[in-house]
Amino acid sequence: VTAHPSYDQLSAAFLRMYRFEHLQAIAMWDHATYIPPGGNDARSAAMGELAAHLHRLRTAPELAPLLASAATEALDELARANLREMQRVHRHATALPDALVHEATIAGARCEHAWRTQRPANDWAGFAVNLKEVVRLTRRQAELLSDQLGLSKYDALMDRFEPGMRSAEVDRLFGAVKSWLPELIRKVRARQAKQTVIAANGPFPLAAQKALCERVMKLLQFDFDGGRLDVSTHPFTGGVPEDVRLTTRYSADQFENSLMGTIHETGHARYEQHRPRAWLGQPVSEARSMAIHESQSLSFEMQLGRSRAFMQLLAPLLREYLGAQPAFEPDNVFGLYTRVRPGFIRVDADEVTYPAHVILRYEIERLLIEGECEVDDIPALWDEQMMKLLEVDTRGNYKDGPMQDIHWTDGAYGYFPCYTLGAMYAAQWFATIRTQRAALDSEIARGELSGVLDWLQANIWENASRFETDELTRRASGGPLDPAHFKAHLEARYLG
Amino acid sequence: VTAHPSYDQLSAAFLRMYRFEHLQAIAMWDHATYIPPGGNDARSAAMGELAAHLHRLRTAPELAPLLASAATEALDELARANLREMQRVHRHATALPDALVHEATIAGARCEHAWRTQRPANDWAGFAVNLKEVVRLTRRQAELLSDQLGLSKYDALMDRFEPGMRSAEVDRLFGAVKSWLPELIRKVRARQAKQTVIAANGPFPLAAQKALCERVMKLLQFDFDGGRLDVSTHPFTGGVPEDVRLTTRYSADQFENSLMGTIHETGHARYEQHRPRAWLGQPVSEARSMAIHESQSLSFEMQLGRSRAFMQLLAPLLREYLGAQPAFEPDNVFGLYTRVRPGFIRVDADEVTYPAHVILRYEIERLLIEGECEVDDIPALWDEQMMKLLEVDTRGNYKDGPMQDIHWTDGAYGYFPCYTLGAMYAAQWFATIRTQRAALDSEIARGELSGVLDWLQANIWENASRFETDELTRRASGGPLDPAHFKAHLEARYLG
Repeated sequence: VTAHPSYDQLSAAFLRMYRFEHLQAIAMWDHATYIPPGGNDARSAAMGELAAHLHRLRTAPELAPLLASAATEALDELARANLREMQRVHRHATALPDALVHEATIAGARCEHAWRTQRPANDWAGFAVNLKEVVRLTRRQAELLSDQLGLSKYDALMDRFEPGMRSAEVDRLFGAVKSWLPELIRKVRARQAKQTVIAANGPFPLAAQKALCERVMKLLQFDFDGGRLDVSTHPFTGGVPEDVRLTTRYSADQFENSLMGTIHETGHARYEQHRPRAWLGQPVSEARSMAIHESQSLSFEMQLGRSRAFMQLLAPLLREYLGAQPAFEPDNVFGLYTRVRPGFIRVDADEVTYPAHVILRYEIERLLIEGECEVDDIPALWDEQMMKLLEVDTRGNYKDGPMQDIHWTDGAYGYFPCYTLGAMYAAQWFATIRTQRAALDSEIARGELSGVLDWLQANIWENASRFETDELTRRASGGPLDPAHFKAHLEARYLG
Repeated sequence: VTAHPSYDQLSAAFLRMYRFEHLQAIAMWDHATYIPPGGNDARSAAMGELAAHLHRLRTAPELAPLLASAATEALDELARANLREMQRVHRHATALPDALVHEATIAGARCEHAWRTQRPANDWAGFAVNLKEVVRLTRRQAELLSDQLGLSKYDALMDRFEPGMRSAEVDRLFGAVKSWLPELIRKVRARQAKQTVIAANGPFPLAAQKALCERVMKLLQFDFDGGRLDVSTHPFTGGVPEDVRLTTRYSADQFENSLMGTIHETGHARYEQHRPRAWLGQPVSEARSMAIHESQSLSFEMQLGRSRAFMQLLAPLLREYLGAQPAFEPDNVFGLYTRVRPGFIRVDADEVTYPAHVILRYEIERLLIEGECEVDDIPALWDEQMMKLLEVDTRGNYKDGPMQDIHWTDGAYGYFPCYTLGAMYAAQWFATIRTQRAALDSEIARGELSGVLDWLQANIWENASRFETDELTRRASGGPLDPAHFKAHLEARYLG
């Protein structure tokens, strides 16, 4: 006999969902890595069936009374946090009728599929037809979520990825960045114009790059007993906490992207691998939010991986796996990994210009969801902001402009802010670690990474969703998210 | 408005099952190929949840009245065949309560898991403890299936894999083989003792073996747009008809097994790839039976792949991919692939001694399920039959005796006969093809495989489960299964 029978029934129901989500994650990984082209349609049908089944489990009629009754049971702090997360999942799922979810999935898949050929053809007009349907259905979902959650339409969508974050706060945080970013970019570029960086001479055999990536994953303490590294067109971290699947992509011309992309994904991967084992299967074990997830990949990639200290570890490995050459001196590798060059493409952007790409997307998608602009207005808004923030002319170049990302094609509106919020959180984590470890850089340069990794494990990974984001942040770093840390980090690295 | 509303509802229900079976197939493939060890437990839990869900779908209370009502609807011949197969699935599933299926799955997984270490340790006593529990639960399932189907207990289990086949018929077919096999083996061995076969000189790089295997798959018209070749410890063909996943395993010491194993699996794979597209998602599209499935792999491996004519195609490819050497002359490759040597291990057995391994397993598992022997009796029965059929002494050697196969550990009783039934069917298919194509061997030697492949496609693959096995056999070959074709084939190849 248990003191909380309703809570226990809920736990069993969520454990069942977790197991179906496992199958979903592995099928998605396979779809991104090994599926032959002819398997796509049958896979989509199977994934659609599973998604519908999961939606039915999350909206099962017995959950609402159980959630109400569990709230009156005697629960410890962890169970109460778990119940809070269950309620969140249930509130989001029950806002949306099955038919709308299904219709939006179909429209997203159609738009995404056509986009694969429309983008290389720079066919904005053709793309816009499908995108309008995706936006129409996303707005309908946003309305229903808005009613259910008592939030603005955009905030209701963003709450799926970043619970508790509101656009008023994003405006405040991004407004700060906008005020200093263009000037910072100009200063950094002026400084770097006087510096010489030696390009690395390829080709770099793919097998050597893979061995190098796996070596660096080991250095970062990725557990290969519970995960793998594979190849996909768009690198990602998937799988399940017990079996994390990350991907990268190799080009024989250059090693920089496969290696740093792997370091980025290893940050995501270690967060997943360290979600508390005892809580797995329950919502409280989930990663706190997508911005916090990005704060882990960016802690690995930006704070640690591109630091001058870390180059003392990378440079010898480059020489070992790719052969010695002048470019592989630590200072030069640092130069390669910190070059700032405004460009068209978000995923190729450097650390300094990246926020500009995110801010313009955030501002456009918010207007779009709130009904304050239409799909046809996107190119002009895009061109204006790219010129203002990065001095890049994108007129008529849709494929390297608003057609470059997958997010809008399949309905992931509200996700973009998480990238730059994640960069801010990562800067705040490292600022905190530095206050506790004065010799951090020399530790890193000697290969002692426990100062960083243990802190992330104790403050972020092990807490999973136990606290809401603001409390997690305060407990970890002593205060709320403060974009000043991000600015200070960029100035120290690029102007210091 | 449709003339068969109940049938249409059933079709929709079976299509849903097909989509969940898709996820099951891909997760099983991943489990055999790429999963890291730490992912096993979570995967097992997820697979258990999915299996339970599929069992609930197959036993859903609305199916029985729909099946009854659909039987009174005006259905064309194909729909009627589909309904017959739906009824079969439903009859088998509803015989078994959820709890028993679950308990048997757990016991099977435990026995199989422990077997992986018990087998190398030759620990029969430890293995027997788990095996007894598996047998106990399998007997319980056999009883329930026996009541439901009106068959003997063993026949009820065998009907899961080989619908319509009964042990009286297997006894007749295998009885014929037992009467001539030991003498045939002796004659072949005496003849081969006078022949010289040159062993191939390795090592054979794995990448070259893989390229060779893929080249031979192309020769056999495997569609790589809808499938892949990977590596697993126990080669198999999995995936789904739209995306067939086959595996092999490589050893640098020898190329023979990876290549011929791939040819074997390609036979399974092409059957799967050619299940009629228009019927996919419905039970009538399923492969007819496991013996018919094995008849495809053995048509590829034994009838075609080890024929003297096919060596004219293989030998040049061996030289191209593995380098020229004296062993790679066609007659010598034929010699390598037709050596007859009685041994302990079924999966390593040659074409002539293989039936002996199957017959002894069939006879033991039938006694076991019917309650006419116990787990403790297995080793003595095994030793006696191995000596009688193959003159091989297995006393005390459990690991290369009754502990060598996975089938008994996880409850697949009734499967073993399918291997040798498949060999008999394959011989019958080729005897039929030869009556229609007098020049078959010279066609094969010239690389014209359409005589074989088109016949298999038209007579086996495209019919899927449209006809019951006996009718399929009569339509394809003009008569019922006749083991004389198998004997004639072995005599022609090994004594001709």
